Amino acid sequence: MPLNVTQLADCLMASYASIGGINHLDGKNLPSKRAIALITADLLRLLFPGFFDEKLVHSSELRAKTSPLVEAVLRSLETEVAKSLEYNPPPDLPRKGLRPVARALTLEFLSSLPRIRELLHTDTEAAYNGDPAALSKEEVIVAYPCIEAIAVQRLAHELYAKNIPLIPRIMTEWAHTRTGMDLHPGAQIGSHFFVDHCTGTVVGETTSIGSHVKMYQGVGLVAKSLALGQQLRGQKRHPTIRDRVTIYAGATIMGGDTVVGEGSTIGANVFLTTSVPPHSLVIQEAANVKVMKKERIRPAEDFNI
Amino acid sequence: MPLNVTQLADCLMASYASIGGINHLDGKNLPSKRAIALITADLLRLLFPGFFDEKLVHSSELRAKTSPLVEAVLRSLETEVAKSLEYNPPPDLPRKGLRPVARALTLEFLSSLPRIRELLHTDTEAAYNGDPAALSKEEVIVAYPCIEAIAVQRLAHELYAKNIPLIPRIMTEWAHTRTGMDLHPGAQIGSHFFVDHCTGTVVGETTSIGSHVKMYQGVGLVAKSLALGQQLRGQKRHPTIRDRVTIYAGATIMGGDTVVGEGSTIGANVFLTTSVPPHSLVIQEAANVKVMKKERIRPAEDFNI
Amino acid sequence: MPLNVTQLADCLMASYASIGGINHLDGKNLPSKRAIALITADLLRLLFPGFFDEKLVHSSELRAKTSPLVEAVLRSLETEVAKSLEYNPPPDLPRKGLRPVARALTLEFLSSLPRIRELLHTDTEAAYNGDPAALSKEEVIVAYPCIEAIAVQRLAHELYAKNIPLIPRIMTEWAHTRTGMDLHPGAQIGSHFFVDHCTGTVVGETTSIGSHVKMYQGVGLVAKSLALGQQLRGQKRHPTIRDRVTIYAGATIMGGDTVVGEGSTIGANVFLTTSVPPHSLVIQEAANVKVMKKERIRPAEDFNI
Repeated sequence: MPLNVTQLADCLMASYASIGGINHLDGKNLPSKRAIALITADLLRLLFPGFFDEKLVHSSELRAKTSPLVEAVLRSLETEVAKSLEYNPPPDLPRKGLRPVARALTLEFLSSLPRIRELLHTDTEAAYNGDPAALSKEEVIVAYPCIEAIAVQRLAHELYAKNIPLIPRIMTEWAHTRTGMDLHPGAQIGSHFFVDHCTGTVVGETTSIGSHVKMYQGVGLVAKSLALGQQLRGQKRHPTIRDRVTIYAGATIMGGDTVVGEGSTIGANVFLTTSVPPHSLVIQEAANVKVMKKERIRPAEDFNI
Repeated sequence: MPLNVTQLADCLMASYASIGGINHLDGKNLPSKRAIALITADLLRLLFPGFFDEKLVHSSELRAKTSPLVEAVLRSLETEVAKSLEYNPPPDLPRKGLRPVARALTLEFLSSLPRIRELLHTDTEAAYNGDPAALSKEEVIVAYPCIEAIAVQRLAHELYAKNIPLIPRIMTEWAHTRTGMDLHPGAQIGSHFFVDHCTGTVVGETTSIGSHVKMYQGVGLVAKSLALGQQLRGQKRHPTIRDRVTIYAGATIMGGDTVVGEGSTIGANVFLTTSVPPHSLVIQEAANVKVMKKERIRPAEDFNI
Repeated sequence: MPLNVTQLADCLMASYASIGGINHLDGKNLPSKRAIALITADLLRLLFPGFFDEKLVHSSELRAKTSPLVEAVLRSLETEVAKSLEYNPPPDLPRKGLRPVARALTLEFLSSLPRIRELLHTDTEAAYNGDPAALSKEEVIVAYPCIEAIAVQRLAHELYAKNIPLIPRIMTEWAHTRTGMDLHPGAQIGSHFFVDHCTGTVVGETTSIGSHVKMYQGVGLVAKSLALGQQLRGQKRHPTIRDRVTIYAGATIMGGDTVVGEGSTIGANVFLTTSVPPHSLVIQEAANVKVMKKERIRPAEDFNI
């Protein structure tokens, strides 16, 4: 006979008592995913003024709109940063009274917005210049997922550099859900960065990307998976991509020692685990492609040959 | 000492003044992403009556439900089309008084819905017939991402063909976020189109796809990335896929001159940049797969061989 | 002259009358996607208590919060299960009076939550131990898409095993949209399962995955697409992956007879259609990568060589 509600609740309570690690009780409050999503959306409005407002914004009202938005973001983000520091205090900070520290870090973070805008200006140019399907820079900013994903990574990277736990990753995962691209907050990314289509592209924590790099969907800049796991934390595990490299769809580039030299092109679906010199072209050999008349094989056995 | 809110707002105002291109101020009002998302959802309700309503719809009430929905979509879409035309007036139209033009274009667009329904009927059949995991056509329409992605592309394609800027791409990016598949509004897609799993599949602007084509996740029908960029706008840059072709997961097919002949099969992870004749089978050679006992290599060096 | 609203509605009504199969009228009520999304989110709160609540939960209040949540989930899920059974009654059940059956199945399903929690505990450990970028298990649960996708698959798998139509697939497609990973409810997945980055990974209905398996983004465990289509329903069509296998990004493994032996490693972008013995390493041959000085070729012809 099936259990009733009281019995079900009893079983769950027993499970909560016996299986730890996936409960979050009595501990420090974690940053709120919902709050961070709202903060990130507001930060995008500060970075691209007028683009994400329902009504047209006039220059004359911009000052009056910017100050309260800065104030609102400061207040909410400071709260989440404080939770994040209390949850996992950086070694050099006191364990209590972290609120003023949170405020100072948040103000420092907000003062980096103009610098981030300079980079996003170059990214927007790269997207427009790199894609003949783009009709205008407005279309790129309004409709292209890569601008949103890169903007969020550049924001999260600033928080990551200040050793604030959890929030940077929650921000980039918010963008990951929306754009299909997973850019880790730790990655160092130069100017004029464009990823066409985005979906499925992954850039790992210790990746370094130069300027004027163009990538496509499904590209992975990843680490070797070694049995060492957590022992590798902090080590350079992901590749280095130099300036003016193009990486086509589905290419996977692996390992912390792997350097793709300046001006190189990596073809689609290549799996690269060693460095290549500047101005290389790396492709799957033509021999990989085999063309034959299907009549010569039985239909159900396309792949049994 | 960190800046205060007034100083932060001052810095941002200075940045807004000095870095153009990523502000949208004082200009023409852009179409609203939120409005277009709502319109697209309503268009899906018109295409698949009864499927996306919370309550069961009876035939007897269908007329009474359809008229107001058509009316509502007409009114909102006309507004967005007008914004879109004002933002970027097509060369053959006057720069003012675009509202009646917007209304006429929107009405024409809505009269294409029955034709789109005919195509979607074939797509639903293709999905059901092509996937042994599908238990019913209802399951396909309610749960399969490809039907939503293809329906939105077929809607956006009609607006694209009428040279309406921005809206078609905003519509397909809405579906891209929800389904992981990026079908450009410009692509020409025949009947009975099925993409299993969808995630990561990209179909570029000038792609031409025949009828009865079946694709999987992670397929890219893409352009060569040439230094020419915007100079290539309007040229055929993406491949042509003829009738009854099957393209497996992760295959990338590139270039405007590349034609995949009728009835061909492209294996997973193939990178194809040249045409293949009808009834071809294109696969990675078996030689690509190398099997060796791991004991012969040191564990940390799987990929250093 | 374009049509007016009445004429547009007339055309649509004519289309609804002539094209069946993509209407859902006068039939049985289908389960509601929106209701199932809310139920799934509540089930995640029961599985990971305290993690997805906005406010910190104290142990002392846990019992008082758990019972009403169980009660609420039971009530909503029972309603959707009843709709689902009425829509497509399993052969061994009466066609009427399915409500008590729905209640019994829902209660049985809820009593599996503690068992699912045991598995998710192992998945969280695998994610934390396997990814040096993970700073804590909390970060894994709050921010990593794979935990959500796997939790939803493990829930849906229980409903799938009870032959409840539609709901399991609607649940996994909800997670698919949010995480980019498509895990079919039918797949059998062992303990300690970790998929890094998730995006684009697809696991088909009859896949069998052992324990301690680690995969990356863009992996496909898929079926051969044969002309037989629906005739193959119920047959083993997807591969078997044994314990302690690692599968890198973009690898596609195909077919119901394909078995990847214990402890094997499959390299990125491999397309594998045959079995490999235990402790195999399967990679694209180094010969696939061709490095040449770009100066030797004309820039626009990178891929015309």
